[in-house]
Amino acid sequence: MQGNSAGTPCSRDPLLDVKVRFGQRLRALRTEQNISQEKLGEMAGLHRTFVSMVERGERNVTLATVEKLAKALGRRMADLMPDAP
Amino acid sequence: MQGNSAGTPCSRDPLLDVKVRFGQRLRALRTEQNISQEKLGEMAGLHRTFVSMVERGERNVTLATVEKLAKALGRRMADLMPDAP
Repeated sequence: MQGNSAGTPCSRDPLLDVKVRFGQRLRALRTEQNISQEKLGEMAGLHRTFVSMVERGERNVTLATVEKLAKALGRRMADLMPDAP
Repeated sequence: MQGNSAGTPCSRDPLLDVKVRFGQRLRALRTEQNISQEKLGEMAGLHRTFVSMVERGERNVTLATVEKLAKALGRRMADLMPDAP
């Protein structure tokens, strides 16, 4: 078998997990600006691997981190918030 | 002397500290709905003293907490984000 078989429930439903939804939002805004994870990390004062983990929904980031990422992307903090599931 | 004397700079400038700005925003939304800290805590599954600390800008809350508070207040997570300083 390759990957998840059809019908296998995902262990982290993006509709449920705020970390995953935030990571998807961050990735969308970053790629929209053609910035690499490394570049975003540099601009936000965060390590590239941390940015990568955040985008994969593996970190429950704090307000301070949201603010750093928002500033680096030139967006408002509200712009980074995912919609309700 | 009582409280801060005039001209004494505040050690935590609300224009600079994202925790303080978030706390102010949360308090504004809560009082708008005439809900006590205790009631908000109950609805969000958080302790009253934690809600109090958040409103005073003493906690660097995570996305998961922002989501709980937003749900309890019937608002979007983005509505809880403070504007840039």
